[in-house]
Amino acid sequence: MSALDNIRIVLVGTLYTGNVGSACRAMANMGIRHLRLAAPNLQNSWDEGERMAVHATDIMNAREEFATFEEAVADCVAVVGTTAREGLYRQHVKAPRDCAADILALAQTGPVALVFGREDKGLLNEEIAQCTHLIRIPVSKGYTSINLAQAVLITCYEFFTATGEYQPPHEKAPPAPQAQKQQLMKNWAQMLLEIGFMRPEQTEHFMQGFHRVFSRGVFTRDDAALLLGVARQTVWACKHGARPSPEGA
Amino acid sequence: MSALDNIRIVLVGTLYTGNVGSACRAMANMGIRHLRLAAPNLQNSWDEGERMAVHATDIMNAREEFATFEEAVADCVAVVGTTAREGLYRQHVKAPRDCAADILALAQTGPVALVFGREDKGLLNEEIAQCTHLIRIPVSKGYTSINLAQAVLITCYEFFTATGEYQPPHEKAPPAPQAQKQQLMKNWAQMLLEIGFMRPEQTEHFMQGFHRVFSRGVFTRDDAALLLGVARQTVWACKHGARPSPEGA
Repeated sequence: MSALDNIRIVLVGTLYTGNVGSACRAMANMGIRHLRLAAPNLQNSWDEGERMAVHATDIMNAREEFATFEEAVADCVAVVGTTAREGLYRQHVKAPRDCAADILALAQTGPVALVFGREDKGLLNEEIAQCTHLIRIPVSKGYTSINLAQAVLITCYEFFTATGEYQPPHEKAPPAPQAQKQQLMKNWAQMLLEIGFMRPEQTEHFMQGFHRVFSRGVFTRDDAALLLGVARQTVWACKHGARPSPEGA
Repeated sequence: MSALDNIRIVLVGTLYTGNVGSACRAMANMGIRHLRLAAPNLQNSWDEGERMAVHATDIMNAREEFATFEEAVADCVAVVGTTAREGLYRQHVKAPRDCAADILALAQTGPVALVFGREDKGLLNEEIAQCTHLIRIPVSKGYTSINLAQAVLITCYEFFTATGEYQPPHEKAPPAPQAQKQQLMKNWAQMLLEIGFMRPEQTEHFMQGFHRVFSRGVFTRDDAALLLGVARQTVWACKHGARPSPEGA
């Protein structure tokens, strides 16, 4: 089981179904599937929620609703409050990236609530007081008020990436070995002489320039093969004084 | 100047103003302020965009519009495409966290475009071919299609956090020094004996338990002072056989 299966997204006193729907899509994007609404205070119909959830309406429809915050987190081994405000009860707040791994470890042992307050007022002091952990999303001083669903997204994103489940795709081609690179330099030198790009005594100078260009970043076997092909074809074309069709190459 | 001032968020062929507005708010939250629309294909009025931008309408109203993708990125020293799809031209894609620092370094030298495709089709192959870097946001295999504004948010968030500009708040109280912790253990032992919680021969056993409880996580001077106050007051109350008012404490 993934620790993410033990995460409960708890929205407290939420006003707009669109934010619930967007939050559901964000949760689905990050592999988190359990939604709880605590004392929802919804001001519009679920149409807007469904529109924003897109293919995550299953999460929205499977939501659990609770009359109070206390009931919504009663079974949780950790209650992680999110807060944008500063103040007396919020001094031990951490960035989500700095505590996601520790909280995921707790989620291996039981349900963990990630709690998000009202669109207008956030979490109240008496709710903050019930949280075992507090997190604050890093934001610019210029505009610190983050949309509810956006806050859910970043928090879920940090927990998802902390699982290490996501592996970025790798280049299919391996890096070019040194011998292939040397061959490339040799063939290019031959080509550049042949087309009259440089005189023989300039070879070292120019080839250091091409070495520099081809040394930036990772250089794969496929990259080298491509450039070797250019040299081969150029030399062929110079000798035959004609432009062969690609089929003839 | 912050490197973020050189970031240009480029939305290509965007369909819905609500996504533009949400993207503007996300940009403002992350200290990025320059928006460009390339070949916008907007299907609704700006009312929805203004509603979603909330206090970031200044960014939306200052947007630059370009007829083509090429024109929108013409002045940029790096063109960073975002793509959710896999395929031939997308093998060298990286996670934003793995390349944000390098791209920010480029943004110290000139404008850098972060490019986001259409809501329905993303970036086209010919657009991908013009990008100098490709990024893919880590998402769950269960639902890989991320909302446009959500993609803008996570990308901007990774660039903002990579600047190191945001410093999480620190506890105002410093960690408790060892002497204060020892005093706490001594006063609590006295209190626990006085209220009859334990017998003298059980002192070592129980105090090891309290030591364990009080050793979890960081324990500040304020935390210690609070618990020392409890011991002091309890001993006082036991001696005087009465519950004094908090004013009398």
